[in-house]
Amino acid sequence: MARVVVDVMLKPEILDPQGQAIARALPRLGFSGVSEVRQGKRFEIELEGAADEAALADVRKMAETLLANTVIEEYTVRVEG
Amino acid sequence: MARVVVDVMLKPEILDPQGQAIARALPRLGFSGVSEVRQGKRFEIELEGAADEAALADVRKMAETLLANTVIEEYTVRVEG
Repeated sequence: MARVVVDVMLKPEILDPQGQAIARALPRLGFSGVSEVRQGKRFEIELEGAADEAALADVRKMAETLLANTVIEEYTVRVEG
Repeated sequence: MARVVVDVMLKPEILDPQGQAIARALPRLGFSGVSEVRQGKRFEIELEGAADEAALADVRKMAETLLANTVIEEYTVRVEG
C-alpha cells in the first residue's frame, strides 16, 4: 500500500478565473498581502502494491489520459510518505 | 515573495463520488492496482512578503473561511520551497 499524489494545475499562461475570484475576495474579507491565487486539483491515489517505477509510470499515464487536460493543465506526480 | 500551498480534501468519512468515478473508470482504461482515489483541491497562494508565522496564521484563516468547508473538508497549509 502506497499513496501517490497527483497535483493538476492550469499552465501558468492559462487564465485562472477561479483563482482570480478568490484573490479579489480576500481584501473584502480583511486579508492583505496576497499577490496571486491559483486553484487546481489534487488526487490521492492509493496503490495496492508498492510505488515502484512501473507503478509511477502507470500513474503518470493516468494523469495524461484521465486526470489532466494536458492542453491547458500540467501535473506533478509524487509519492506521499 | 513566498508560495504557500493549501490542500483541501474531503474528510475521510465523507463520500467522494468524483474520486469513486475515477477509480471505477481506471480498469476500463486498462489500469489496475489502484484501490482508492480521492479528489480534492489545491490552492497556490503567492504572498507579497515572507511566509512567517503571522502570514501562515492568515492563510489558515483564509482556508477556514473561504477555501475549505470545514464541515465536510479538511485542509493542510505548507510553505512550498
